Amino acid sequence: MAKVVEVIGLERIPLVKEGDNLAEIIVKASREEGIRLRDGDVLVVSQKIVSKAEGRIVKLRSVKPSPEDERLADDSGKDPRLVRLIREGSKRIFKSPLGVLITEDKRGMVCVNAGVDKSNVEGEDAYALLPLDPDKSAEKLRREIERLTGASVAVIICDTTSRPFRRGQVNFAIGLAGIDPFKDYRGERDLFGYVLKVKNVAVADELAAAAELVIGQGREGTPVAIIRNAERIKASDGHTARELFIPREEDMFGFMF
Amino acid sequence: MAKVVEVIGLERIPLVKEGDNLAEIIVKASREEGIRLRDGDVLVVSQKIVSKAEGRIVKLRSVKPSPEDERLADDSGKDPRLVRLIREGSKRIFKSPLGVLITEDKRGMVCVNAGVDKSNVEGEDAYALLPLDPDKSAEKLRREIERLTGASVAVIICDTTSRPFRRGQVNFAIGLAGIDPFKDYRGERDLFGYVLKVKNVAVADELAAAAELVIGQGREGTPVAIIRNAERIKASDGHTARELFIPREEDMFGFMF
Repeated sequence: MAKVVEVIGLERIPLVKEGDNLAEIIVKASREEGIRLRDGDVLVVSQKIVSKAEGRIVKLRSVKPSPEDERLADDSGKDPRLVRLIREGSKRIFKSPLGVLITEDKRGMVCVNAGVDKSNVEGEDAYALLPLDPDKSAEKLRREIERLTGASVAVIICDTTSRPFRRGQVNFAIGLAGIDPFKDYRGERDLFGYVLKVKNVAVADELAAAAELVIGQGREGTPVAIIRNAERIKASDGHTARELFIPREEDMFGFMF
Repeated sequence: MAKVVEVIGLERIPLVKEGDNLAEIIVKASREEGIRLRDGDVLVVSQKIVSKAEGRIVKLRSVKPSPEDERLADDSGKDPRLVRLIREGSKRIFKSPLGVLITEDKRGMVCVNAGVDKSNVEGEDAYALLPLDPDKSAEKLRREIERLTGASVAVIICDTTSRPFRRGQVNFAIGLAGIDPFKDYRGERDLFGYVLKVKNVAVADELAAAAELVIGQGREGTPVAIIRNAERIKASDGHTARELFIPREEDMFGFMF
């Protein structure tokens, strides 16, 4: 029989609000779909519901921009209060002439506008910030789910981001627990005995991308996917999404910026 | 019932050689697995077997480097004959200090070493070049598969590439047929009626990434995946992977390079 990886969308997640127990919500939604979580399942969870549960929603009217925020707002055509939020989430800002700010956070993750985003957040001037520590959020979710179900699952927290050189956004891993983010082939042999020198596949990002096929970014109301039978991945403790963020001096594209 | 997208790995593909009819091979392998291809299936096919079928394998001993190739070889620490192959596949070369060449091909695709790669190619000095026109290869495969099975499928030809800012490689679409490479949410409303302004998801790249969960890069011998029930994608004629390659002036990261 052919190998089949399943990407299952959980559609019965209610609107999440601050203080909600996400693990309970996910376990309940999966039971309602007749799905029993099991060892090796990978739960890919949209950043937005994690941010909501953790109270990371901010109303612009409560934000006080500084003169530096005002200056950067003029340059980028953004609301200075939004610039304030983006700067608070960033260690470094590369400016962009196209009305966005390319940012690097304190963990080394490069993304757009520090991940501050308006979509699927209730309230006209309400924005979601990224979870303060997405790896910690993933680890907490993973432990809670194991406690509730007995299943040893992996958790990936995902967000969509634009990428250099290619049009459109794809889903990436911004936090993870219980999984090695890579399938490293270096030192292994290929079909003809040649020793692979470079191949180190970022499976955590591929799992996030696969999950997006059911999660969606609009009104789909499917913020969680379960990925099942992914034999390639390695359940493993002690990893974080930080391993996916590459320092400039090791980045083969680093000479460009 | 929950929405389930299936990613099915075709493990019974024999070693492919020049002149082979890939469509016949894929249809035969799927039948042997008990899978009947149907309308809406997305076939994700590894670039390597397309290159082999199209005779895009080159032995280094047959390559004559120019003085310019020799110079660039000195700078990058590469074999000058390999530099010759990479330069032939490129319109522009950004140099990299880390022993690789970042290249842009005549279609506008930016990748590493023009996609010239040694893994899973038979023969000590044999390298695979990318298909000459991956969109055309995809369209041909698609038409042949429709002729053989009656099923209207989409075809994505994929390759793994390194990305700026993130460690490791992921699978990307380098050619496609029968599918809109994007799910464009711009102008649609989110759960709370907010009109989405930016979200334009590169689903073709996400399908390629999802396929990699069964394809693998080592000895797996699974160069083709069938993705089934991906409701988000739109079967559509007249699209190409070129739409995924963004010109520098529209690239929000373009100011960096």
